[in-house]
Amino acid sequence: MDTPRLSDFVEQDHDRIVSTLFDWLRIPSISASELHRDEVRRSASFLVEHCRDRGLEHLTILETPGHPAVYADWLHAGDHAPTVLIYGHHDVQPVDPLEEWTTPPFDPIIVDDECRARGAIDDKGQVLYQLEALGALLAADGSLPVNVKVLVEGEEEIGSPHFEDLLHEHSELLACDVIVVSDTGMLAPDIASTDVAMRGLVACTVRLTTGTHDLHSGLFGGTVPNPLHHLSRLVAALHTPDGKVAVDGFYDDIRELSGREAWSLDTQPFDEAAFRDIAGVERLEGETGRSPLERIGSRPTAEVVGISGGYTGDGIKTIVPAHATAKLTFRLVADQDPADVMTKVGRWLATQVADGVRLSVTWHGGVAPAHTDTEHWAFGALCRTIERVWGAEPLLTRVGGSGPEETLGRVLDAPVLFLGVGLPDDRIHAPDERMVMSQFWRGLLAAGELYRELADAAPSPDHRAGTEDA
Amino acid sequence: MDTPRLSDFVEQDHDRIVSTLFDWLRIPSISASELHRDEVRRSASFLVEHCRDRGLEHLTILETPGHPAVYADWLHAGDHAPTVLIYGHHDVQPVDPLEEWTTPPFDPIIVDDECRARGAIDDKGQVLYQLEALGALLAADGSLPVNVKVLVEGEEEIGSPHFEDLLHEHSELLACDVIVVSDTGMLAPDIASTDVAMRGLVACTVRLTTGTHDLHSGLFGGTVPNPLHHLSRLVAALHTPDGKVAVDGFYDDIRELSGREAWSLDTQPFDEAAFRDIAGVERLEGETGRSPLERIGSRPTAEVVGISGGYTGDGIKTIVPAHATAKLTFRLVADQDPADVMTKVGRWLATQVADGVRLSVTWHGGVAPAHTDTEHWAFGALCRTIERVWGAEPLLTRVGGSGPEETLGRVLDAPVLFLGVGLPDDRIHAPDERMVMSQFWRGLLAAGELYRELADAAPSPDHRAGTEDA
Repeated sequence: MDTPRLSDFVEQDHDRIVSTLFDWLRIPSISASELHRDEVRRSASFLVEHCRDRGLEHLTILETPGHPAVYADWLHAGDHAPTVLIYGHHDVQPVDPLEEWTTPPFDPIIVDDECRARGAIDDKGQVLYQLEALGALLAADGSLPVNVKVLVEGEEEIGSPHFEDLLHEHSELLACDVIVVSDTGMLAPDIASTDVAMRGLVACTVRLTTGTHDLHSGLFGGTVPNPLHHLSRLVAALHTPDGKVAVDGFYDDIRELSGREAWSLDTQPFDEAAFRDIAGVERLEGETGRSPLERIGSRPTAEVVGISGGYTGDGIKTIVPAHATAKLTFRLVADQDPADVMTKVGRWLATQVADGVRLSVTWHGGVAPAHTDTEHWAFGALCRTIERVWGAEPLLTRVGGSGPEETLGRVLDAPVLFLGVGLPDDRIHAPDERMVMSQFWRGLLAAGELYRELADAAPSPDHRAGTEDA
Repeated sequence: MDTPRLSDFVEQDHDRIVSTLFDWLRIPSISASELHRDEVRRSASFLVEHCRDRGLEHLTILETPGHPAVYADWLHAGDHAPTVLIYGHHDVQPVDPLEEWTTPPFDPIIVDDECRARGAIDDKGQVLYQLEALGALLAADGSLPVNVKVLVEGEEEIGSPHFEDLLHEHSELLACDVIVVSDTGMLAPDIASTDVAMRGLVACTVRLTTGTHDLHSGLFGGTVPNPLHHLSRLVAALHTPDGKVAVDGFYDDIRELSGREAWSLDTQPFDEAAFRDIAGVERLEGETGRSPLERIGSRPTAEVVGISGGYTGDGIKTIVPAHATAKLTFRLVADQDPADVMTKVGRWLATQVADGVRLSVTWHGGVAPAHTDTEHWAFGALCRTIERVWGAEPLLTRVGGSGPEETLGRVLDAPVLFLGVGLPDDRIHAPDERMVMSQFWRGLLAAGELYRELADAAPSPDHRAGTEDA
């Protein structure tokens, strides 16, 4: 196996890079906090200056109605070379509960090869190794093997509310052949992996109404419909006894796992006791015949995230309420279509409602599932990169959550690759978030290798959308 | 049929009685309002003075930790005569929404034979006709045919929180052979009826816990237990498909309706469309094979009065919650025992909970069902009284709600009779509460007849607890 070409650079620039990382981590760019609005902007400015310092061009703050994103590029590799867009984010999660941090969240420190700070791994560290790899290659060669665009969002931790608009507004500026998301992780330092899917999401509020006003339970109970009884029956019917979603046709369009994905799922270690500990539950449950790992990322689910109705204060109030509300979410996998699922769920809900009960359903938008085409030429380049740096062919993993990646791939019409060095116990969104520094340095090496691999693997511009064999 | 003996009195004292009624109704004795604390006491003082004026003795304000009750008596009928305790209350409901009143709630007015004011029928009017009947008989004869104790509570509209303690504290003072509750109604002026039962009540808060903290629905949904799903299944299982309560043994101790109660139920008119309108519902539902009227008063019920869990704000939060809570109430009929039902419900709840789900149940006290012994000699006297004044034998009705009557009968160990002149459309607890004045005058006549009937019907003191035939 070749030694990655940036190995020497990592040695030489070690202290400067750590110093830059610390300076950035000291900026509390909490996008959820109105009080930190200026800090998010300060983080964007810091990033612009660092991109300039590393030799990138067209440095731009992309304004949104919320927090700003940062754009930079280097586009001198020529038309024959592919254009790679690197995605990350510079905003961070809030730090509550502050008292559970061992050291202050915005006072970064490295202890036992762990850099501890809010944003260390999510996502400033992962953006920084990309920029440092680009800078090192530009410094050494005066050029890059690919055209590079860098897009670093400022609202990822609040659900990217303006991201799709931003992509549409700047679609020409952001046009690319490949997207590299630098915001995820792998199973373990010695079990290299790459994500190939994220789930989609549709969600709705279901409200049942049985009357015009609350009634006295003594004078009317047992004689009028109780919306809490009806809603409970509806929710109880949402899953079959074997844990499947009971909505007709819900599973129709699911693409089965590829052989390599299925193999990865079987190969992937899973410590159920440790998972239960992290979740704080005594027992796992879900779709019969599917493993917990399969259920999390590869199967669609229905979860009721909230129910309310009637009297919920102290003690008891003797009423029959007039309304009851449940919030339903459905996680989707490829190739389920959000609009189609919404139609099917709506149809199913209507069948669950008895005479005399009025149903209202309010949908809260939808996110399509994302799935990387593992036959795409760029995906092969990613796998070769990971194998060179981590010493093993990556397992393919699917993420249970939903993020802006589907939007990125869809709006920019490019395959999404996930190069991420996070680890399952990095405590993202929690006290004592950390980044394992050996993973950071490997990320830097991998970024340097990936651009070369992508340049080598890219077919001629006319065939770039195709697969490796095409 | 005899003319009731107080007919002339009603003519002669008409204006004075209405004037007294209006003076009392002008006192806003709202027990639920801290701002009106002095007004409740002013109402008690007014009542004491009126009892004195009507010839009653031992006038006493009975203090409680809350609002005061009033006691008065006349005990010179001798040991051979029964002692009758008359129960009512002098506190009233709040008046919100004030803007929906046609005339101010504490500015009583008589329009078209209706006295409109807060407290007109619930319960000042019903207390007043009792006092006026006593006063008239005392004025005419210098004596009463029975010994009389009057107990007028000041906290009925807030659930009588100190009433049981008060009864125990003054049990010797309040000892009696018969209790006459003057706080209820009948089906219609031309369909005389008397209540013979009130339902009991047990209530609990059920909390299911599946984890230590809320979880991300993308990373854990479909793999960990969701307490909202489990709670919904529990609530859905609380009733069988035919609308019965599914708790094992729940119906074991129910006393079937007597022939006369069953006949009353069948005879009683019921306008389902009008009932639906009042309830504001499109359709009635409940236990199969039982009529709506039977379900309201004569059958026990289970109603979930509130459910809460997870995220219930605007939009969606993608969590799997750790807890879910439901509030369950059970209305009981004779001879169900609250403690026994609590045991059975607790046992049933435990069977509904899957492995990995923790159950906690908090009980909120219990009220036993009340049921008047219709074979008791005093009940016969009541029925003859009603027949004399309203011209028809009363139908026997059961009240769906629960009140202090069970406590009265149990603590004082005496049968509870209901002489009430309210009508279904008197708008109690609502804007434009009213009392139909012709019902008030009939109530006054009936009270006068009832004391004589009770005196005539009472067996010798040694046999007073027995039935008419004993």
